[in-house]
Amino acid sequence: MAKELTSRAENYSQWYNDLVVKADLAESSAVRGCMVIKPYGYAIWEKMQHSLDKMFKNTGHSNAYFPLFIPKSFLSREAEHVEGFAKECAVVTHHRLMKNPDGSGVVVDPSAKLEEELIVRPTSETIIWNTYKNWIKSWRDLPLLINQWANVVRWEMRTRLFLRTAEFLWQEGHTAHATAAEAIAESEKMVNVYATFARDFMAVPVVIGHKTESERFAGALDTLCIEAMMQDGKALQAGTSHFLGQNFAKAFDVQYANKEGGLEYVWATSWGVSTRLMGALVMAHSDDNGLVLPPKLAPIHVVMVPIFKTDEEHKTIIAKMDALKIEMENKGLSVKIDDRDNLRPGFKFAEWELKGVPCRIAIGPRDLESGMAEVARRDTLTKESIPQENLADYAVTLMDTIQKNIYQKALDFRAQHTIKVDTWDEFKEKIEQGYFLLCHWDGTKETEEKIQEETNATIRCIPIDTFVCEESGTCVYSGKPSSCRVIFAKAY
Amino acid sequence: MAKELTSRAENYSQWYNDLVVKADLAESSAVRGCMVIKPYGYAIWEKMQHSLDKMFKNTGHSNAYFPLFIPKSFLSREAEHVEGFAKECAVVTHHRLMKNPDGSGVVVDPSAKLEEELIVRPTSETIIWNTYKNWIKSWRDLPLLINQWANVVRWEMRTRLFLRTAEFLWQEGHTAHATAAEAIAESEKMVNVYATFARDFMAVPVVIGHKTESERFAGALDTLCIEAMMQDGKALQAGTSHFLGQNFAKAFDVQYANKEGGLEYVWATSWGVSTRLMGALVMAHSDDNGLVLPPKLAPIHVVMVPIFKTDEEHKTIIAKMDALKIEMENKGLSVKIDDRDNLRPGFKFAEWELKGVPCRIAIGPRDLESGMAEVARRDTLTKESIPQENLADYAVTLMDTIQKNIYQKALDFRAQHTIKVDTWDEFKEKIEQGYFLLCHWDGTKETEEKIQEETNATIRCIPIDTFVCEESGTCVYSGKPSSCRVIFAKAY
Repeated sequence: MAKELTSRAENYSQWYNDLVVKADLAESSAVRGCMVIKPYGYAIWEKMQHSLDKMFKNTGHSNAYFPLFIPKSFLSREAEHVEGFAKECAVVTHHRLMKNPDGSGVVVDPSAKLEEELIVRPTSETIIWNTYKNWIKSWRDLPLLINQWANVVRWEMRTRLFLRTAEFLWQEGHTAHATAAEAIAESEKMVNVYATFARDFMAVPVVIGHKTESERFAGALDTLCIEAMMQDGKALQAGTSHFLGQNFAKAFDVQYANKEGGLEYVWATSWGVSTRLMGALVMAHSDDNGLVLPPKLAPIHVVMVPIFKTDEEHKTIIAKMDALKIEMENKGLSVKIDDRDNLRPGFKFAEWELKGVPCRIAIGPRDLESGMAEVARRDTLTKESIPQENLADYAVTLMDTIQKNIYQKALDFRAQHTIKVDTWDEFKEKIEQGYFLLCHWDGTKETEEKIQEETNATIRCIPIDTFVCEESGTCVYSGKPSSCRVIFAKAY
Repeated sequence: MAKELTSRAENYSQWYNDLVVKADLAESSAVRGCMVIKPYGYAIWEKMQHSLDKMFKNTGHSNAYFPLFIPKSFLSREAEHVEGFAKECAVVTHHRLMKNPDGSGVVVDPSAKLEEELIVRPTSETIIWNTYKNWIKSWRDLPLLINQWANVVRWEMRTRLFLRTAEFLWQEGHTAHATAAEAIAESEKMVNVYATFARDFMAVPVVIGHKTESERFAGALDTLCIEAMMQDGKALQAGTSHFLGQNFAKAFDVQYANKEGGLEYVWATSWGVSTRLMGALVMAHSDDNGLVLPPKLAPIHVVMVPIFKTDEEHKTIIAKMDALKIEMENKGLSVKIDDRDNLRPGFKFAEWELKGVPCRIAIGPRDLESGMAEVARRDTLTKESIPQENLADYAVTLMDTIQKNIYQKALDFRAQHTIKVDTWDEFKEKIEQGYFLLCHWDGTKETEEKIQEETNATIRCIPIDTFVCEESGTCVYSGKPSSCRVIFAKAY
């Protein structure tokens, strides 16, 4: 099975596509640019959702649900917003089909044309702020801290499973505050929630930073982001948190009465992560044998494969495994016994490696005699012989070990592939080799664009705290003065 | 607050609409027929989702996600299916907007017309069975047991919050089986899961039964349903489970190799419940003071309201409440202290009654001295004085008592409003008073239609086990022979 996987060295991009499909995470659908998230992939997404949702609730947010459709006129209210999304909108124009007069199937019923077209939400600021107008009257209604789990549609021309799809699943937080300072603090709090989630659950180290003006969300005054490094040294934007100022409050006329009775426009944030995280997870850790999943997000922690020749051996081993399974489940692990009768152990081993199960346990007739079991670690591909009586505790500890090891490996990789670069020649050389380049930049859009034209690298962010970047120097491209370094990289 | 609520006696329908909005469950949006589910309403829906999801997983189902859009040609593949849904389809025809040449806002870009229109899914049988074609090759791939949590759109002309909206949230199970018997067993299993959920979580007794041919899902050979009685004696269909035969397998050419190597078409089921359950929950239990929520689905179990005059009293009472809150939370209850400083206790009482919180605890200065607390039950509106030291245990037991009491009340109500009727005159009289009528029916579509025309009553189902209905008699309308009674009622 694993043999069919393209290797990373051969073609990193193909390796990713192969892996997503072969590990049963997702596949393309009959609808252009839309994917089917398969049960195994969806189980990982559910774990992500569950952990994030808890973090949102612990920081005072409630979930709600707003309409899928946005009246076309709403989009136009905020000038930059419509500019940013108009070109990738799925537009509903009719509400009925009818039999084709020629008898073949159905056609759109021309008499069922909508008075105003509806846009399938690409993001929900406009419909939500139109609703907030009725919810916010006084300072007592603030802050309003709401999150939505939903599907959104952006008609992308080039799509890739999880990384860029026409429809994707996400959460979008939309908050309203009395002051700019509170809104800015909220946007910072939430980008930190994302970074914590990436670190503690996905085992992916991320850089928190500000986007440059040209990379900001359409309608935002500031966009914070988390950027992760993939194994090819490219960056992947894994989440964003926007300070929207009063732009949407003004566009939808949302004012509140302050304590003194005066009317003020409300301050806003929005923040989101999507099924794109699945792409980051796959690309950050996996290897040529398949997925490597961090235990915190793995649908199955331990898979057990019986090895036997006789029916008698089979029966005894399965009985032993059943008992071990219960013991491990009582300690909070998710355990599967692979007792399929039509496949050889070697095939099963390869399949569970492909699927990234953190720990594989094999028990054969000799292990039964000796009271041992063979334990294989997915992250290191190493094997150990462990007494069966210690197995449950061992597996629990192993999950923790693997979670930490995967993170450390990604952190080390990033450290090895992040360098300060001060000359344009070195920039051009290193950017082709897959690095995060910490460089001085003169702060102009022109330089940003020229660098992208020449190298395809973009400013991923102006980092906040991961790297010490505040120092004076001269722009790597223009030679003009600069007061801090930014991260340049090629990106997904 | 509660004063603004229309009473049930005055106008049951208006009472429902008032209640949904005033209790902060949902409201209409700017998009025709689409609702906003507000945080309090969504919290109840999340509890429903959580419990149902667990039940689905315990019965072997996995979640997955399929595209929002369905190519128009897919809908036409199954003749009855397209017939059933064509008239209420939201149709996406374009994928881009552009600036209006006259400078005002944006318009649909005519050059971005889709080659084939996409339908926003009204249900997902077609896109899913088109996918299953690639997933099912052999008997080893069966049964395939998948569920999806999603939004769907059916362009209804008359909408009501939760009960009938253009967009709604639901789950849809789609399973594939090797034999008809297995598929039928699955459809029965899942309708029973729904009935168990309605009974144990919603505290709503339901009748399980078969739909008549004319009420079947478009494309099904049999539709099982659960029907609940609302407080006006009307029926509400709360969930359906369909045996689809081989219709979709044939439409999408899904065959599997059986153990003997022969090719056979696969057998299918689908089953779903939606945010309509929220409407059933509201209408089944609530009263003229507001919501009555079963503790198993209540976002807040206990609300505590301090009663005080001095700052000193306030401080002491809140400290006591903080301690009680922790004690109750440790026993699994969700507790809120309503310490808002701008509202009187009476206003708070009314508001939490409106929101259906099962238990309200008030502590005032005299209670502090006596070590007591005033405990009010939402379901009976009775009050009791309880020692503070017993309060946490008392509240836990009370949740159980309330859950059972609400169910019993609904069960008794249904028993009182279900009667056998054998004459057409009595039928016409009783149907106007709000009853489930157990009647003989001659089994013909003609009779069913005529009864509906004359009385607006429909056959809710042919009950399976709730009522003893298998007996011979003569049709209440036509006088022709009948072998079992069915349930007639007016319905939502």
